[in-house]
Amino acid sequence: MDGWWDCRKLDCFFCRLLSSSISEQAVPLISKLYILKSKLFNLQSRGKSMEVINRQYELGNDLFKSFLDPYHQYTCAYYHDTEDLNTAQEKKLELICKKLQLTASDHVLDIGCGWGGFARFAAEKYHCRVTGITLSDSQVQLAEESCAGLPVRIKKLNYRNLTGEKKYDKILVCGMIEHVGYKNYPTFMDIVHRQLKDSGLFLLHTIGRNTSTTYGDPWTVKYIFRNAMLPSGKQLFHATEGKFILADWHTFGEYYDTTLMAWQKNFTQNWQTIQPQYDERFYRMWNYYLLCSAGAFRANDIQLWQILFAKKERGGNYHTVR
Amino acid sequence: MDGWWDCRKLDCFFCRLLSSSISEQAVPLISKLYILKSKLFNLQSRGKSMEVINRQYELGNDLFKSFLDPYHQYTCAYYHDTEDLNTAQEKKLELICKKLQLTASDHVLDIGCGWGGFARFAAEKYHCRVTGITLSDSQVQLAEESCAGLPVRIKKLNYRNLTGEKKYDKILVCGMIEHVGYKNYPTFMDIVHRQLKDSGLFLLHTIGRNTSTTYGDPWTVKYIFRNAMLPSGKQLFHATEGKFILADWHTFGEYYDTTLMAWQKNFTQNWQTIQPQYDERFYRMWNYYLLCSAGAFRANDIQLWQILFAKKERGGNYHTVR
Repeated sequence: MDGWWDCRKLDCFFCRLLSSSISEQAVPLISKLYILKSKLFNLQSRGKSMEVINRQYELGNDLFKSFLDPYHQYTCAYYHDTEDLNTAQEKKLELICKKLQLTASDHVLDIGCGWGGFARFAAEKYHCRVTGITLSDSQVQLAEESCAGLPVRIKKLNYRNLTGEKKYDKILVCGMIEHVGYKNYPTFMDIVHRQLKDSGLFLLHTIGRNTSTTYGDPWTVKYIFRNAMLPSGKQLFHATEGKFILADWHTFGEYYDTTLMAWQKNFTQNWQTIQPQYDERFYRMWNYYLLCSAGAFRANDIQLWQILFAKKERGGNYHTVR
Repeated sequence: MDGWWDCRKLDCFFCRLLSSSISEQAVPLISKLYILKSKLFNLQSRGKSMEVINRQYELGNDLFKSFLDPYHQYTCAYYHDTEDLNTAQEKKLELICKKLQLTASDHVLDIGCGWGGFARFAAEKYHCRVTGITLSDSQVQLAEESCAGLPVRIKKLNYRNLTGEKKYDKILVCGMIEHVGYKNYPTFMDIVHRQLKDSGLFLLHTIGRNTSTTYGDPWTVKYIFRNAMLPSGKQLFHATEGKFILADWHTFGEYYDTTLMAWQKNFTQNWQTIQPQYDERFYRMWNYYLLCSAGAFRANDIQLWQILFAKKERGGNYHTVR
């Protein structure tokens, strides 16, 4: 970030590093301190939940608009028979709608709705009602603007405050559980379970880790996603046992490499248009973030999962959609 | 089994029972003793591994031939666009071959190969080499007979004795991990990992539970599958962490209901042909076993999973097959 060293292809650098065993051998002291901190404290407590919002999502809608697609999807795209980011993001939204078996009579709860891209897509194409919640004022503002006239309601609300009697037909959590923290997974799943109808479906789209940990990557946690951490399959099952039945588990981490490279290309191409608001250090930080993430997916060091859950009461097989 | 009570439709009886919460409220003392026993001892130790073989798989090939399909598949069939058991079992074998991306140059290891049905199918249709292992003399005999002339080798071997330098292109474990026991999952996964090439694929086909336990259903453990227990997703991930990356997780428990009902129909229809070898109590026991299992799947109390694992080194997305 400060220009002490440079690398022409950071994504390739990180892919090689993470494909080797060097990264396992060199666990810096800071990582050990992070583990200790993550065990002693609840890093994703209600009180701390605004930290990542202020650090990341309030950076300004102009920044995100400069590299995201028109639906402002800040999660992995679905590059199925396409090489274009915008098309791949629409395919991702379509994939989610089909997996959730959306119909016009559905009321969908979107926990961590971002800038309202899914809500707009689902309401426009499937004519269903969507309630989206987020903690970011910038996201509420843009989501409300872009969903104007549609059966969409955006609320500034913490997931812990989803306490109403209202039960939803379908629930989507897309790129949000990375902020929840392992100590809160059971509570989170209790809430999703309570808000979902017995016949409902719950889709969880998340980055995942092959091995369990209790803390996030120190650099990312400090500069990008405050207090974020990636779940493992074991941690997720620990939290869903006795609540949900697994219906389907889809993995497509390779597409996150492609998505991040497309974002990085857009970011550098459009840098001049947003540059007055940010400095050179921010430019280096953002490139580092996008490219080291791309390298991590390319090395298969982290994965991308779409996990579909149902309640036991639903019964029957689930028809796989890809 | 002794005729103290009867029920015209045992499958429906068990489906209703397991769909209610009665079964959770009434945990008999014997279950608590089983839990204790399963924590104190390794019920699936090397020394105990012949118990289920003698209890179940040496009951005689005539019995199994009387209700299974021509490939002697004693696991869930894949009733995809068919209502016929034999066709559905061929579709299951085809599904496994496609998920494992079999080619003629592959050497497949089939751990718990049963009566050699997969080995025969894969060698005939995909022209690959298959090494199958089982602990049952009856299975070795029938598997060798039915695979005669094909590039198939059947060995009487405990999975713990898979110690050679030989690495396989693909590994299949179909309906066998139910005998391994939670204490041995990590060792089992270590062995599979060691025997698989870095570019390989490992398909695990198993009955699964939504909640973790350490023991099997007391009746089933006593009369049918000695010391068997069903894995949970959490237990499986605990054992695969740091070894395998999840590639795909497919669930189709509804088809096990259909499979078991087809087996029960065949069993009762062909009872006269095998009847001289077994008594009335056996007839009642076998019907009870098949029908209570069907009811458990219908109630979504247990699930059927096909889980595909790869090594980190393989990289890239996995193409879903259904």
